[in-house]
Amino acid sequence: MANGNSLSRQTAALIDDMLQGNGRALAKLITIVEEDNEESYQVLRRINPSGKAHRVGVTGPPGAGKSTLVNRLTSFARQDELRVGIVCADPSSPFSGGAVLGDRVRMQQHYMDEGVHIRSMSLRGSLGGLPATVHGVIKLMEASGKDFILVETVGVGQMELDVMDSVDTVVVALVPEAGDDVQAMKAGLMEIADIFVVNKADRQGADSMVVAIKSMLNLVMPQSNWKVPVLATQAENNIGVGELYQEIRRHWNLCAEDGSLAERRAKQRRNELTTVLQKMVVQEFMRAVATDPRLAEYISQMNDGKLSPYAAAETIYSIIAQQGEPE
Amino acid sequence: MANGNSLSRQTAALIDDMLQGNGRALAKLITIVEEDNEESYQVLRRINPSGKAHRVGVTGPPGAGKSTLVNRLTSFARQDELRVGIVCADPSSPFSGGAVLGDRVRMQQHYMDEGVHIRSMSLRGSLGGLPATVHGVIKLMEASGKDFILVETVGVGQMELDVMDSVDTVVVALVPEAGDDVQAMKAGLMEIADIFVVNKADRQGADSMVVAIKSMLNLVMPQSNWKVPVLATQAENNIGVGELYQEIRRHWNLCAEDGSLAERRAKQRRNELTTVLQKMVVQEFMRAVATDPRLAEYISQMNDGKLSPYAAAETIYSIIAQQGEPE
Repeated sequence: MANGNSLSRQTAALIDDMLQGNGRALAKLITIVEEDNEESYQVLRRINPSGKAHRVGVTGPPGAGKSTLVNRLTSFARQDELRVGIVCADPSSPFSGGAVLGDRVRMQQHYMDEGVHIRSMSLRGSLGGLPATVHGVIKLMEASGKDFILVETVGVGQMELDVMDSVDTVVVALVPEAGDDVQAMKAGLMEIADIFVVNKADRQGADSMVVAIKSMLNLVMPQSNWKVPVLATQAENNIGVGELYQEIRRHWNLCAEDGSLAERRAKQRRNELTTVLQKMVVQEFMRAVATDPRLAEYISQMNDGKLSPYAAAETIYSIIAQQGEPE
Repeated sequence: MANGNSLSRQTAALIDDMLQGNGRALAKLITIVEEDNEESYQVLRRINPSGKAHRVGVTGPPGAGKSTLVNRLTSFARQDELRVGIVCADPSSPFSGGAVLGDRVRMQQHYMDEGVHIRSMSLRGSLGGLPATVHGVIKLMEASGKDFILVETVGVGQMELDVMDSVDTVVVALVPEAGDDVQAMKAGLMEIADIFVVNKADRQGADSMVVAIKSMLNLVMPQSNWKVPVLATQAENNIGVGELYQEIRRHWNLCAEDGSLAERRAKQRRNELTTVLQKMVVQEFMRAVATDPRLAEYISQMNDGKLSPYAAAETIYSIIAQQGEPE
């Protein structure tokens, strides 16, 4: 991987088309990047996008109405003539194909709009996993000319939360019912939110939920230029989403002015460097492990339970490391 | 990490106590393992459990009643005089502290029982992540003498599904409402299930759900000694859980007889070896990256956006790899 420079003529042509904004080429390149193999690597190393797109994450527990919010936000962004990319990494989202009929119909307007590219992520993992793959897809979308990129994840596992490291503005969506949401906050959502939304605000308890989040924020949030807003929305009825859209844009403008956007981008680049480096070193090392005939004996002892995996790892590591990394 | 052999006298004493079945020592060691640092490593390399415990995974979408099932299964295992460990890696589970009052009360019987050890996992990630940490906790529980280890995860992300690689018998719990569950199947639950449960079977659509799963299984499942059962349960009312418990035990006995249990264990050991090796090599490499003065220039160029993370990674990798891995 580290030394390869090969890229098929076909894939190189796809990149050229994608850079011109061709949607089919973008879709094909995303599929290549999702594969997470040598070709994905070769594609991503050729993409160094402008960094001018506004990357917005929408996360929260299942059932918070995240995809309806994403759908409505897309309409507002289109009114501003922004080209929109939607990356859905939530397996329960209608965007990823699990829609009940009504959802599909409602979203069809965007599926037909050439200014909107919608992509659901497969959830197959790899080293670096979902967050690294989503980061690659965001880069592709930006390189293809998208101005406003919405990333939907379900805020349950750490891996899903880590996806939010790749965006500029994090919207955390909750619903008025308390139980799950209080739990969701524990799971790290409180720390990552730039904007809170209490969606389905026509339900009982919405006002007290807004108050509760605000007082939690007052307790835990450090002093900052940005005071995290807590908005009540009814995405289903398109109530409050315009204000949410304005706050999302205001957050980004402020971050651009005070230098924190540049910091976030630098951090995203460092994360990407780390992921790529780790992949390189692990891949080379595991290749050495797989091909070194001196190791078979230890692996077989471990398979039989005579050697613990830790003891086997220490022996194997010292054998490979002593001769330096193979080229 | 690779060369360390140090273990504080205090931690060594905890291991001795844990091996004698001391619950407080077990709890403290789990906390150490969760930290995923040098000390965690030193603890885990000293544990090479018998492999005699029956490890059972219970997974499925949020709201499927997984923790109620785990609670009921624990009672059946206790009637068989099995010592039970419960590992909860589901942030929305009552076991992890997000309980409504009724759940807590219901589970209190097990919290008071010395033959049951209940542990919720924090969801902080690391290299190897949640699956590696859960695997370590399972090993500790087994080493402390647990016979029957129940692992609860929410089957949403790939990381959560990967946890199921560490168990012997996978129970996938669904509920009669179709939407989310069909989606859940897509997300990989179909392939990993040894037993399907349609819980909350008093709800409408339970029978047709059982039929639908059975016909899907007939389509996709390879020929095998084990025909995946599809059971209807009402864990809340303790209906059908005894049969589920019997099927779980029957699966394990069959796997022990036909050699597939030994295969699974060997695979678990290989996974552990790979995780440990990858951690070692990444840690040493990143230490070299952090301390090599020749790299600062490239990292600074990358921070400024003059060099892409991929180009920086390739340069850094070639500089470090040329001189071999530092000892």
